[in-house]
Parts: sequence; structure tokens; C-alpha cells
Amino acid sequence: MMQRPLILVTNDDGILAKGIKSLVKVAKKFGDVVVVAPNKPQSGQGHAITIVDPIRIHKVDVFEGVDAFECTGTPADCVKLAKNVLLKDRKIDLCISGINHGSNASINIIYSGTMSAAREASLSGIPSIGFSLLNFDHDADFSGASWASEQIISKVLDTKNSDIKLLNVNIPDLKTAEIKGIKVCTQGEGNWVEDFQESKDPREQRYYWLAGRFEASTDDPRSDLNALKDGYVSVVPCIQDLTDHAKIDEINYLAQ
Amino acid sequence: MMQRPLILVTNDDGILAKGIKSLVKVAKKFGDVVVVAPNKPQSGQGHAITIVDPIRIHKVDVFEGVDAFECTGTPADCVKLAKNVLLKDRKIDLCISGINHGSNASINIIYSGTMSAAREASLSGIPSIGFSLLNFDHDADFSGASWASEQIISKVLDTKNSDIKLLNVNIPDLKTAEIKGIKVCTQGEGNWVEDFQESKDPREQRYYWLAGRFEASTDDPRSDLNALKDGYVSVVPCIQDLTDHAKIDEINYLAQ
Repeated sequence: MMQRPLILVTNDDGILAKGIKSLVKVAKKFGDVVVVAPNKPQSGQGHAITIVDPIRIHKVDVFEGVDAFECTGTPADCVKLAKNVLLKDRKIDLCISGINHGSNASINIIYSGTMSAAREASLSGIPSIGFSLLNFDHDADFSGASWASEQIISKVLDTKNSDIKLLNVNIPDLKTAEIKGIKVCTQGEGNWVEDFQESKDPREQRYYWLAGRFEASTDDPRSDLNALKDGYVSVVPCIQDLTDHAKIDEINYLAQ
Repeated sequence: MMQRPLILVTNDDGILAKGIKSLVKVAKKFGDVVVVAPNKPQSGQGHAITIVDPIRIHKVDVFEGVDAFECTGTPADCVKLAKNVLLKDRKIDLCISGINHGSNASINIIYSGTMSAAREASLSGIPSIGFSLLNFDHDADFSGASWASEQIISKVLDTKNSDIKLLNVNIPDLKTAEIKGIKVCTQGEGNWVEDFQESKDPREQRYYWLAGRFEASTDDPRSDLNALKDGYVSVVPCIQDLTDHAKIDEINYLAQ
């Protein structure tokens, strides 16, 4: 009998978030599922790893019929522990991260713990996907996102299509029937227009609190931002090589 | 009289690290320097940002004749606060981050708080450079790294060369006279072969502690890893668009 694929599920909103519950439910249809996820929300953790402190993991009973571990570390730590300790004796066939509460389209990928967990897995050659829903609410409706993740996981696990390294999938905040389809996209250009709330704490000490809004800077029809605006699920294939190859000759004046 | 350029200096090893002291000393030769740096070491923080907590900053007297602020946030937070609060009324001409105690060559760029601070600045159009020395010691010798950073900052500030977005500069652990020169490179391929130290704490609770060694996976003569091995300073120009453009058509079977 063929062994079912081993699917590692993680996230950055913490093991009790609604989004990971949806993703585990989908993953169980396709394979043996193991969850290793942070024991607390880790949004905006980027690709942080824990170096100067020890990490602890505890087996928890959160998802029916699924081995699950809560971890004191970052999303990337969770994947490192899964690869090197918990699942070291069996090949991980797929790593899925999310479903994140909130967009990781455009430049948000660099701040995203969800995507960093997926990237960490992909660095070891594990096909990896980060899923994010464009709704920040704790109690968001994940039905459309569940449908989209099922479609994509099914196609990625098809053995004919084993060329997946790292995908950034974002899902519009729509009911399944309202989603127009799935589009393969480029990373849209945009940035945060930021502001800090400045105030004083109960002891009269000044503090700053990050605030702001995201602004798209182009209207490229191939971009994830445009696909999402039009009601499509966006899928961006991602690289690990951050070299700006086009610039290498141009800045050769720096060499000597 | 021409205004001197405004140079923002930050790091991830904390405002008291030896590396940032070296970098401030170099920066003062070229412009008006403002330091905003974490109040504690933040190695391996990646592009983490602080969303759910307030951030505090305090003016400190650490560098002679230089406005300096310690910040309770991450390296990326420091840059966001500098851009949006502390220096909002004056254009930042250059952001330099480091000099990091330890390599950020190859894939280490994704874990690096040093590079994330520089990337954060570059997202706002500020030419930005992360500098790292291949020596982890608190008391490393930064003389070669100071020489290299001075060479590169001088060329980048030359107004004829205003095309710099984000550079990842790594410096071999050599005396100035032993450094062979500066090379513009690609990001070398490699990864961490990891292991976790597994042990029990004084209360008999199990913990894991990240350990491992970096391994280069190719011997590409154009790579930063090779340049550093040969005694050169490596300069890798970096992108913000993480799209794997070559894969877009290839994975179009995911769309529907």
C-alpha cells in the first residue's frame, strides 16, 4: 500500500487560531498531518529564529486525530524543530503554513511569519506553501480560503507536478461561490504608509505604537494585488536568491 | 554651504556592540550621523517588526558628538521609527547597518536583522547597506571591516553613483593589508546543517537549543562565498521582488 504523503502544518497566528484549524482540516484529506505551531501569535516575526534561548515543545490535543505540538519559538523555529527533531526519520512531502489572518501579498511577504515558515521548509527542498486570507479578524470566515487551499494542495501533491518550491498564496475575503478563480501572479509593488501612535503610559513614559496603511504603487495587471482586487486567489512562486542580477555589472565601480 | 549627507546608522547586535562603534566612526567622516539601534542584541531577528506591543526610545550618550537613540524594538522597528518619527523632517541620504558580528553571506541574509534594517530603509527609497564581518566574537578586530566600509560608503555617496538600492556587504576576518580587494558578487548557494542540543533544565523540563554549521552547496566563482574564501570583500546587490519570474508559466496549471 502506498504511504500517504506527510504534511507538516504550521502558522504564525498560534496553534489555537481559526486559520490553522481550517488548514489542518483540508490537509487531513490528503495525507498524514503533523502540526508544529507557535504557542502564541507571532505575526510580523519575519524570518526570526531563536538563537540565544532554548526552545520548548509540548504535545497538545487540539486537532482530532492529528499529532500536534505547540512550540515556544518563532514560525521558522517550528519548522526547524519539525525537520530536525520531531520528523527527522520521515520525509516531509509538503509544508503548508497558515491560513494567515491577513494579507501577505506584495511586500508583506518580507514581514510575514507565515511565509518565513514556508520558506524555511523550502530551503530543505520541501515543497512549501503559505496561505493567507485578506481578513485580520480572529473569527474570519475561512470557507473560501479552505476551498482555495484544497484546490492548490491537490494540484501540488499530484506527482506529475513536483516542481513546486515556495508559493505565496493569498485569498480574497469572499465566499467560495464569489471567488473568480486562481491566478499565477507576480509580487505587486506597494509599501506601508506608516505612522506611529505616540502617547504616554500610566507611568507617564512616552511610547510609540506602529500604525499605518498599505498602498499599492502600481496597477500591474499581472500582480497579486490586482488579482486579489479582481476577486481571484493569487499564487506567487518565490525565489531564495535575492541577488539583483541585473545590477551586478552596473555597480562594478564599487569593486577594486 | 552644501549640507552634509544625513546618515542613519543601525544594527542588530545592539547599540553597545563593537561593530556599530566602528561603523559610526567611519560614517562621521562623511556626514551628519544619527544612530537608532536596539537596546539589546537582536541577532537572527530576520525582518521581524513589533505590532502588538508599544515601542520605546531613549536618547543615549554613547558616540561622541552623535545623536543616538536606543530602541526597545527590532532592527526594522528602529528604521521605521527613524524614518517616521525622529528624522521625519529631513531626508535620510544613506542607511548603514552593522557592522554585524558574523557573516550574512549566502542564505544568511534571510535570518539577518542587520540586512532587514537596511532592507526596511531601502523600501522607502533610501540607499542602504548592511555590513558584516566574518567573526562572531564580541571583541572581534574591526580594522579591516572599517577600511572596507569606508571604501564602499565613499563610492556610494559619490553623487554620480546614485543607483544603489540595497547592498549586502560581507568582509573577511583579515587585517586591512591582507584583504585582496572588493568584488561585486551573487548570493552563494548554501544552507545550515542543523542540529538541536536536547537537554533538561534545572526543573527536569526538556528543552532544545539550535545548533549547526553552514555548508556551501556550490563552488560558483561569482558567489559571495567564494569571494570571501579568497580574501575579498563581497558586495551583493539585492532585490525586493521575490517573484520567481521564470516559474510563472511553468506553474500555470495551478490556475483555473
